[in-house]
Amino acid sequence: MAEAALKREATPSAGAARKGEVRRVLDKVKAEGRASLTAPEGKLVCDAYGIPVPQEGVANSAQDAAKLASGMGFPVVLKIVSPDILHKTEAGGVLVGMKSAEEVSKGYETILANAKKYKTDAKIEGVQVQQMLKGGTEVIVGSITDGSFGKLVAFGLGGVLVEVLKDITFRLAPATREDALSMLDGIQAAEMLRGVRGGEAVSREALADIIVKVSQLVSDFPEIVELDLNPVFATAKDATAADVRIVVDFEPHEQRHRPAHDDIVRAMNRIMRPKTLAVIGASAEDGKIGNSVMKNLINGGYKGQIYPIHPKADEILGYKAYKSVKDVQGEIDVAVFAIPAKFVAQALTECGEKKIAGAVLIPSGFAETGNHEGQKEIQDIGRKYDIRLMGPNIYGFYYTPENLCATFCTAYDVKGKVALSSQSGGIGMAIIGFSRSAKMGVSAIVGLGNKSDIDEDDLLTFFEQDDNTQVIAQHCEDLKDGRAFAEVAKRVSKKKPIIMLKAGRTSAGAKAASSHTGALAGNDKIYEDVLRQSGVIRARSLRDMLEFSRGIQVLPTPKGENVVIITGAGGSGVLLSDACVDNDLKLMSFPPDLDEAFKKFIPPFGASGNPVDITGGEPPKTYQNTVKLGLEDDRIDALILGYWHTIVTPPMVFATLMAEVVEEMRSKGKVKPVVASLAGDVQVEEAAEYLYQHGIPAYAYSTEIPVQVLGAKYKWARGAGLL
Amino acid sequence: MAEAALKREATPSAGAARKGEVRRVLDKVKAEGRASLTAPEGKLVCDAYGIPVPQEGVANSAQDAAKLASGMGFPVVLKIVSPDILHKTEAGGVLVGMKSAEEVSKGYETILANAKKYKTDAKIEGVQVQQMLKGGTEVIVGSITDGSFGKLVAFGLGGVLVEVLKDITFRLAPATREDALSMLDGIQAAEMLRGVRGGEAVSREALADIIVKVSQLVSDFPEIVELDLNPVFATAKDATAADVRIVVDFEPHEQRHRPAHDDIVRAMNRIMRPKTLAVIGASAEDGKIGNSVMKNLINGGYKGQIYPIHPKADEILGYKAYKSVKDVQGEIDVAVFAIPAKFVAQALTECGEKKIAGAVLIPSGFAETGNHEGQKEIQDIGRKYDIRLMGPNIYGFYYTPENLCATFCTAYDVKGKVALSSQSGGIGMAIIGFSRSAKMGVSAIVGLGNKSDIDEDDLLTFFEQDDNTQVIAQHCEDLKDGRAFAEVAKRVSKKKPIIMLKAGRTSAGAKAASSHTGALAGNDKIYEDVLRQSGVIRARSLRDMLEFSRGIQVLPTPKGENVVIITGAGGSGVLLSDACVDNDLKLMSFPPDLDEAFKKFIPPFGASGNPVDITGGEPPKTYQNTVKLGLEDDRIDALILGYWHTIVTPPMVFATLMAEVVEEMRSKGKVKPVVASLAGDVQVEEAAEYLYQHGIPAYAYSTEIPVQVLGAKYKWARGAGLL
Repeated sequence: MAEAALKREATPSAGAARKGEVRRVLDKVKAEGRASLTAPEGKLVCDAYGIPVPQEGVANSAQDAAKLASGMGFPVVLKIVSPDILHKTEAGGVLVGMKSAEEVSKGYETILANAKKYKTDAKIEGVQVQQMLKGGTEVIVGSITDGSFGKLVAFGLGGVLVEVLKDITFRLAPATREDALSMLDGIQAAEMLRGVRGGEAVSREALADIIVKVSQLVSDFPEIVELDLNPVFATAKDATAADVRIVVDFEPHEQRHRPAHDDIVRAMNRIMRPKTLAVIGASAEDGKIGNSVMKNLINGGYKGQIYPIHPKADEILGYKAYKSVKDVQGEIDVAVFAIPAKFVAQALTECGEKKIAGAVLIPSGFAETGNHEGQKEIQDIGRKYDIRLMGPNIYGFYYTPENLCATFCTAYDVKGKVALSSQSGGIGMAIIGFSRSAKMGVSAIVGLGNKSDIDEDDLLTFFEQDDNTQVIAQHCEDLKDGRAFAEVAKRVSKKKPIIMLKAGRTSAGAKAASSHTGALAGNDKIYEDVLRQSGVIRARSLRDMLEFSRGIQVLPTPKGENVVIITGAGGSGVLLSDACVDNDLKLMSFPPDLDEAFKKFIPPFGASGNPVDITGGEPPKTYQNTVKLGLEDDRIDALILGYWHTIVTPPMVFATLMAEVVEEMRSKGKVKPVVASLAGDVQVEEAAEYLYQHGIPAYAYSTEIPVQVLGAKYKWARGAGLL
Repeated sequence: MAEAALKREATPSAGAARKGEVRRVLDKVKAEGRASLTAPEGKLVCDAYGIPVPQEGVANSAQDAAKLASGMGFPVVLKIVSPDILHKTEAGGVLVGMKSAEEVSKGYETILANAKKYKTDAKIEGVQVQQMLKGGTEVIVGSITDGSFGKLVAFGLGGVLVEVLKDITFRLAPATREDALSMLDGIQAAEMLRGVRGGEAVSREALADIIVKVSQLVSDFPEIVELDLNPVFATAKDATAADVRIVVDFEPHEQRHRPAHDDIVRAMNRIMRPKTLAVIGASAEDGKIGNSVMKNLINGGYKGQIYPIHPKADEILGYKAYKSVKDVQGEIDVAVFAIPAKFVAQALTECGEKKIAGAVLIPSGFAETGNHEGQKEIQDIGRKYDIRLMGPNIYGFYYTPENLCATFCTAYDVKGKVALSSQSGGIGMAIIGFSRSAKMGVSAIVGLGNKSDIDEDDLLTFFEQDDNTQVIAQHCEDLKDGRAFAEVAKRVSKKKPIIMLKAGRTSAGAKAASSHTGALAGNDKIYEDVLRQSGVIRARSLRDMLEFSRGIQVLPTPKGENVVIITGAGGSGVLLSDACVDNDLKLMSFPPDLDEAFKKFIPPFGASGNPVDITGGEPPKTYQNTVKLGLEDDRIDALILGYWHTIVTPPMVFATLMAEVVEEMRSKGKVKPVVASLAGDVQVEEAAEYLYQHGIPAYAYSTEIPVQVLGAKYKWARGAGLL
């Protein structure tokens, strides 16, 4: 029913009509210079959008009152309507809990009599009959306006305890019916809505309907900056907002400039995979940033044209040098800046005149040091000439498919499928160090620094269409335009996993973030919910981001939820099971035939069921047989291996055998994610590396990381609708 | 007042009297073959222990009733007392909410009149006057009996929402007043008790008083297996249990055998640091377990006497062999078993006759394969001859101060201060591998396997008095005697940090644990709370246990809560701040003079406050100055360093300088924990190792682990009452 109502009201003419009604109310509020709506105005707005509020009407006779009450359903409240009676209750002008037409009829007379007794000459306009809300579950539906994400719709249970526990969930507005339904499951106390201890389950459709309508309302009217339906009474058949509060702000807000999708793609392609590149401030002198950049470009093996720009030099490191980009013949795609901040604006203007697509602004000395004017100046130049700016205050970037190291950091050339970016230079260095140490292939590493222009959603837009990139990992401290990010991420995450390490999660972290970049870190719960809504996998720590980047890119996508643990160490099996629960993985419950099939390969005292405990001291054959079975049986979707180092099956014997089995089965079309936990002496480290190189993320001395990595892949696959 | 009441009742005679009253009630219940108490019996028990229940009395006149009511306070409920009137309400025999003496007086007459009207010849015994509980916060106080931990007292808020959120907390009974108060803070919704939204705070003393009394009651009477006070109405001045439910079980339960403390110490010292040692099943043949054990003993450098036991050989690996331990002249401290399960009982009997203190039972084939009888048999032999059994089904143990490797695994000889144990062999191998790889010194590694006898609390008792051990880390899947463990852990953790990795935390993990060792994993919330109550640091994953073991042993104990982050990378500062919040560390808020003092050393655009952001690209001197200041100023208690790899301050320059500064300040008595997060290229790995070797736990590519490790040390220090 709620759905039908929603559809009906979604027709264009109904939409225009309801918008017209709300517009009239808001115009009046604006004309009167108010910042909030009165209760009757709130009710009008709710009525216009079909948000259920208590029914009410004014009766002028006992018969009228009974009829009105019968129409809205019992019980009702009766209230005297008289400009001369301010204290209704004192005057005996209020009766609650009227349960029948007869009671209402009598009540009408009583109230009238009381009123006359109270004030003989009172002008009586009638008796208000109002539907009395009772029972049901009290919930809150609301909306706020966030600096980064814009309009958000919120949902939570009513009551003080929920406030104490901060059990509330957010989605971007407008929210779809699916979003709204996911909110009902998105609170800790979700079970309350499903009916507890014999209590009735609430109508999910009715609640979702209200959430969707609220989200539509605030999206249609940006001036509604806050809205609260508190409480909403939800029952098994409906939901009604007992109280409405709406706060407005008619000041127009500056919209962030957002280039069109195709313009982003065109510019980012010229920047990330340039045919020609200028180094402004190129230098032959060791130790200078402009020298490091030149060397990295040359030694990295970049095949495009390099133009060193230097005020005096004729030649730098064997390349003909120019005084200005304007002196270069032919097109330049991107300019890498390695000059002090104070010279940037002038050089950038020349880049603009030269129609260069992007400027990689390594120099620091802008907003991060308090030089906001300097940053604004270069932003304005960028906009004027349509040059996209990366940075300032960055290490530059790497794009390995083109052997491009446009950075002063050490070169990196291990090609892989993950593109990483960081807002901070330190984190960028950690990415490079970890990648090198863990032999992780990357497609790109990008520094975003002050994000005066290019930000996370520009990168997503580029990597979306970049076939060299299959996974995207981003470290950020804020999102300048969370809404744009969410929009792009929602689309991109359907195709490629996006991992985000959002720093400044906690208020202490947020404080540090704000002193660092002048960025105001948003409410973390909003980030949490919106990132999930956008299909983004959230990393909780730097190591998680790095491990996810490394592991997810080699794991095939699972086809179903059935995870099986095969372990030589029972103790690892227990810890791996714990980790499965922690990471939302479902341990498959075995049908009898599958249990029997596994049992055939393991000693009689091995544990049946899942985990498959093959017991310690088993030969390679036992691992081989059970893992093969796990890969062959189509009911199983993913494997977690627990290896126990023994003389009978040494680490490298295990590793080579597992790589072989997995490869063999993959060639037969049995492509499933497999991860491994290795318990043993130091030789397991070599085995872990070998397994990783053969597509099996494997970890020494850890039962947690392999499962976290598999869990992250699953989280992505679920978010992308692949499961 | 509640405290005074508690003290008064704690006098021996009062104690005896109240016990006598409860005993009489329980005897009656037992005699009548009941499993639970009636409501009046429950009230008697509560009265005996001073647990407040609603006051009541029977009045025989209106005057009486008014007097009674005035004594207990208004409002009250009046109820007819008559064996002839079953349906009191129907008879007009109940009046609620009587608010004054006058109302009560009138009410008495009304009830009597109604009763007579209802049944003329009804025998009226009087009118019950009962205190009417209202308002306040509804909470639950209860007690359960756990298989491993015994009597536990529980506390939570009342209501369905709390049930859904499983927001309840446990402590071992009897609980101290301090334990009880900690329970009020131990629930997620603790804020509710402190008064929310203008609501009144409840009386913490009154609630703690009830918790303590309940815990005392169930400890005094083991037959009370379950108790529920639900709800308890808590107000600003008192707390009253509105309903009491008590379940009893008079079947005596088998008590686990627990040797006396001194006997444990004596036996464990002979086992862990034996002067003489027999290897039963010693072998000269490569690949045999008895051969590996012999070689590890010899090559490990064990200086005690080794007696190989073998049915036929005269000599094994240069040591004279014996047919039985009984053939050896002189005392043998410990026997390491390397023979098949079926021969163990016979050899163990001989060990008993030889008065050997302990048997290290490497053989598998006991309870873990379903051979429970076999395990019972050796347990009985152990008890008969007073031999302590380690295992069976273990890898043996290492005790590095004696160069003792009583195991078939590879030798390990890096001496350090942490003693680790594991229930599982696989986890034992991971401990060895990690230790070797991370250059972690250990004092002991012990396998506990099936824990037929020696368990975690025996090890704690030994390590408590072992000066070579300063930190204890244990992996377990269950605690056979959680109560004994908690008792010992509570004492030991005051002196030495205890880290526990409890596997089978989740229901899936618990299932795997149960199939693995036949152990029933307890309710994890109970483990969580009791471990905290016992001062144990809980590790969430294998890596956490290993990293805590490695890091905590080199960190000095902090003297206060003021933590300061000094970072070269602002981005690391944000992530380190997040981690501080996650790990309950308090970022010191700087007094102005301290802020000024730091500012002197950093560039003008560096962030003031905490984190101290010295900004990237600073020379070694800046790190040196700021860290020195951090160590010198007595208001600062711990430092977290965030290093950013630059050409200006390369990793090893940073590492050697930091080690120097910390060493210099330590020599001046400025001993503070310092941890470091290193962001940079692979050279930071060498720097991290160098720093660790110099007492600064440091981690490459991680902002989380250093803070977790420091957080674990703090958690311990707080639990031990050192902060």
